[in-house]
Amino acid sequence: MGRTNNFSSIAFFLLLLILGCSAAPIPKLRARPQPCKRMVFYFHDIIYNGHNSKNATAAIVGSPAWGNRTILTGQNHFGNMVVFDDPITLDNNLHSTPVGRAQGFYLYDKKDIFTAWIGFSFVFNSTEHNGSINFAGADPLMNKTRDISVIGGTGDFFMARGIATLSTDAFEGEVYFRLRVDIKLYECW
Amino acid sequence: MGRTNNFSSIAFFLLLLILGCSAAPIPKLRARPQPCKRMVFYFHDIIYNGHNSKNATAAIVGSPAWGNRTILTGQNHFGNMVVFDDPITLDNNLHSTPVGRAQGFYLYDKKDIFTAWIGFSFVFNSTEHNGSINFAGADPLMNKTRDISVIGGTGDFFMARGIATLSTDAFEGEVYFRLRVDIKLYECW
Amino acid sequence: MGRTNNFSSIAFFLLLLILGCSAAPIPKLRARPQPCKRMVFYFHDIIYNGHNSKNATAAIVGSPAWGNRTILTGQNHFGNMVVFDDPITLDNNLHSTPVGRAQGFYLYDKKDIFTAWIGFSFVFNSTEHNGSINFAGADPLMNKTRDISVIGGTGDFFMARGIATLSTDAFEGEVYFRLRVDIKLYECW
Repeated sequence: MGRTNNFSSIAFFLLLLILGCSAAPIPKLRARPQPCKRMVFYFHDIIYNGHNSKNATAAIVGSPAWGNRTILTGQNHFGNMVVFDDPITLDNNLHSTPVGRAQGFYLYDKKDIFTAWIGFSFVFNSTEHNGSINFAGADPLMNKTRDISVIGGTGDFFMARGIATLSTDAFEGEVYFRLRVDIKLYECW
Repeated sequence: MGRTNNFSSIAFFLLLLILGCSAAPIPKLRARPQPCKRMVFYFHDIIYNGHNSKNATAAIVGSPAWGNRTILTGQNHFGNMVVFDDPITLDNNLHSTPVGRAQGFYLYDKKDIFTAWIGFSFVFNSTEHNGSINFAGADPLMNKTRDISVIGGTGDFFMARGIATLSTDAFEGEVYFRLRVDIKLYECW
Repeated sequence: MGRTNNFSSIAFFLLLLILGCSAAPIPKLRARPQPCKRMVFYFHDIIYNGHNSKNATAAIVGSPAWGNRTILTGQNHFGNMVVFDDPITLDNNLHSTPVGRAQGFYLYDKKDIFTAWIGFSFVFNSTEHNGSINFAGADPLMNKTRDISVIGGTGDFFMARGIATLSTDAFEGEVYFRLRVDIKLYECW
């Protein structure tokens, strides 16, 4: 009798667990999960300033009425849109062999402080990685680190989703910016 | 004997359930699911028009060859790109304490009627919310409501996905626009 | 006694299975899965060039300092941003009845070769499809096919994710481009 009861209650408990498990929406962990893939890269942005057309990897292509497209405008560059095609390296050396290109745009979007919105892709074409990772999000430049979204991927990064933590690793005036990107994927197919 | 059979069949039934549960692809509901999180906010867009640089929260930064960047062009503003940094409020009052900033851009993309494409983030920094929500999608402005995608999130909104329903809550000429955003997340981590 | 042991071990086995099942991360297939939805469309981009304002469906709205907004600039159009509102058709005929509009932007982002970054939506309004599909990604135009991400959807395409394979189906000079889009959704709600 006791055993029957035990059995029933264990079965019932299992059933509850199973139902909880099979019911959509899929249960999500409260604790932040571990990434299924993590990678760190650097990319190097050299903004055209009228004198560096040979080396420049980025150019201002939009500006507000009060600005121009050669020099970043006042008011924390508010309204400047920059298009870039920057080399991606595995370490923080601009002259290391690139493993791909960071391609896309950013726009300075605040008058009071430096902050930007960024949409871009990492396009890989190396022995190690093929495919692309797509990013979008707010980039409050003055913060030591800032998180943007990995919104998709192709090839080796098919259907990827996750978070990329950006940090400004170095800069020279308003011409050279080196960004460190710590990519943490939480959906890997 | 009877109990053994019962036990076996229950175990088998449980096993089937478990196998059904563990098999990828993840089962998706046919019926539209309930959001795992729902929030309503307002944001306030004041477009620079040459006379309001103190109050403006947005500026035209791109225009077609036939337009300029001070006044929205004819042909339903086709080709105008606007960058914005707008206050987010909990109610429809421009002067309420902001809970964050809506930052990004929209582009008017049709000659015949007003319609736009929008990419932006909600950047929260309040006692209640920290983190960001990233949005993208078509915004046919003349529709009473229009749905765009929540393509990702960070911080409190880590890995969020969902739908945001935009509606124009009020406007004054071509300078002030108040948007209501009904955010429905269907993936909450 | 034997039965008790059996029972315990089966229960333990079930429990292990359940725990394996309920633990996030959700198991993902190793082999590339089959799409849950697949659709092919064409869209037609006619870029304004100063002489075709009646037919043009796209216009240059951003350019680098060395370019203008009437004619695509040299250096592989690096820095040109184009806004578009293009008809979507089921076949490769520009004059077929459109089933929706492709709306968004692309930017040429490399000096050495043609390559672009693209963010846009398919906005459907036909008897067959209602809703929108949102896309973003790198578009290396010179490749026969290139994959971008489906980052979300609304209406019939609620919460969609997947891959879209673009190919240039035809072009005439630098004015008309016909794109074929093979949409493969891997998340269908």
